[in-house]
Parts: sequence; C-alpha cells; structure tokens
Amino acid sequence: MLGPINHIAIAVPDLNAAIALYEALGAQVSKPQDLPEHGVTVVFIELPNTKIELLYPLGENSPIASFLAKNPSGGIHHLCFEVSDIDGAGREMNDIGVRILGSGEPKIGAHGLPVLFAHPKDFFGTLVEFEEVARP
Amino acid sequence: MLGPINHIAIAVPDLNAAIALYEALGAQVSKPQDLPEHGVTVVFIELPNTKIELLYPLGENSPIASFLAKNPSGGIHHLCFEVSDIDGAGREMNDIGVRILGSGEPKIGAHGLPVLFAHPKDFFGTLVEFEEVARP
Repeated sequence: MLGPINHIAIAVPDLNAAIALYEALGAQVSKPQDLPEHGVTVVFIELPNTKIELLYPLGENSPIASFLAKNPSGGIHHLCFEVSDIDGAGREMNDIGVRILGSGEPKIGAHGLPVLFAHPKDFFGTLVEFEEVARP
Repeated sequence: MLGPINHIAIAVPDLNAAIALYEALGAQVSKPQDLPEHGVTVVFIELPNTKIELLYPLGENSPIASFLAKNPSGGIHHLCFEVSDIDGAGREMNDIGVRILGSGEPKIGAHGLPVLFAHPKDFFGTLVEFEEVARP
C-alpha cells in the first residue's frame, strides 16, 4: 500500500532563515505559499527523489503553533506517503488497528488531494499523512 | 550540494512491532542487522523512492537510548542526505555557519560510508546526516 514518500514536513520558527539555509545548500526552493484554510505558509525544497515541505504558522489557529511552542527550534512535523487509493488505505489502517485522526474520513489536504492522518501513537511517535496521488 | 534523501531514521521502542506494522502495510522490510560499534540494531523499510531506517538500541551505551527516554513512543531521529563529496560538504557547512557534531571530521557511518552530522539547532530542530555516496 505504501507508495513513495511525497514529502517530509518540517515546522520552522523562521521561514526566511530556513529558506536562506536551503538556498545556501544549493537546493531548489519554491516561493512561499499561504494556505489560510490550513493555517500554514508552505515552502517546498525540491530534492532529487522527494521534497521537504517547510511549514510556518499562518493566522490565529494554526495547527502547527502548538508544535512550535513545544519545539521552539522547529522539527520534523510529519511524513507523507503517497497511496493510490485513499479509501482503501483508510480501510487497511482500520483492519490493522491504526487509528485515523479526526472523523476517519479523507479530507482535502494542503495540495488539493484527498488525505488521511494516522495517529502518531500507532506509528511509533511519527505523525503520518497518506495522500492519494494518481500515477500513470 | 544536497543529493537525494538516503533515509529517514525512526527510533522505535519495539522493533518487532514496528516490523509487523510496515509488513502489514505491504512494505519490503529487511532482516534486523546488529551494528554493535554504533550501538543500534537497524531494519530498512524499502520505499519506491527512499528508505526508512528503523533504529533500536543495542548494548549499554546506545546513542538512541536517551532519545527513546525522551520520546517513549519513538519518533523521527534524523534525516540523511546523500552528498558526492563529504569533505566539501563539511567545508560548505562551515562557510555558512552550520556546526558539525563531534570532531568536525567525517567518520565511517552505519552503512560503511563517510558521514557527518550537523547540529540540529543549525537545522531548525532536525538532526541531519550527510553521507558520501558515489553515484555513476
């Protein structure tokens, strides 16, 4: 069921400094993109085989504000695996006893694609996102 | 300078349970490998574009014992980027003010290749490994 790692999401307390670091290392860095409905500003670091998604809080109720309060230097927030069938992924999680966060139903994620998040306690302390990506 | 993500290392408090989870998700999982000189047992989860390295403490002075004491459920321990020239990577870090852990000189890492680790405070809370991998 597990496809490629779509991205590794890293929450940062200073977006410009993080952009400057990855640019200094020669990485291809996207322009910041505000996603008000998700409460984050995102920047993508393109790597040869996957990408890093920098997350920075946007607005009053950003879902990453509490993460940064606990991790003031920043830190890896979640891993995202691609799956070809998000409903099937949800059923599979259910069958093996991995809890899905929220209603348990897929939502539209930050990239406009259906996603689910698994409970970190059921994934050895790692917040894991599954994103339905159609591949030819 | 940044090459592909070679692996995402996740420390786990129960290696057999973590293996069972990734096998249940259909991933290709290696046999556990004891690396006494590094104080860890490692298991590789092969993904289509990179791999996850599960880390479990081995012996008295495992470098991941304190991480698991702080994160009893487990968690992402480090990210590893491939580089083509480890000495050049070290100089580049130095030039941009990223501190290298330990002596500052490359050591032979868990995969038998030269590695450096950057200070997490200089990488927004993420422990980052650089591994010299020769690519054709």
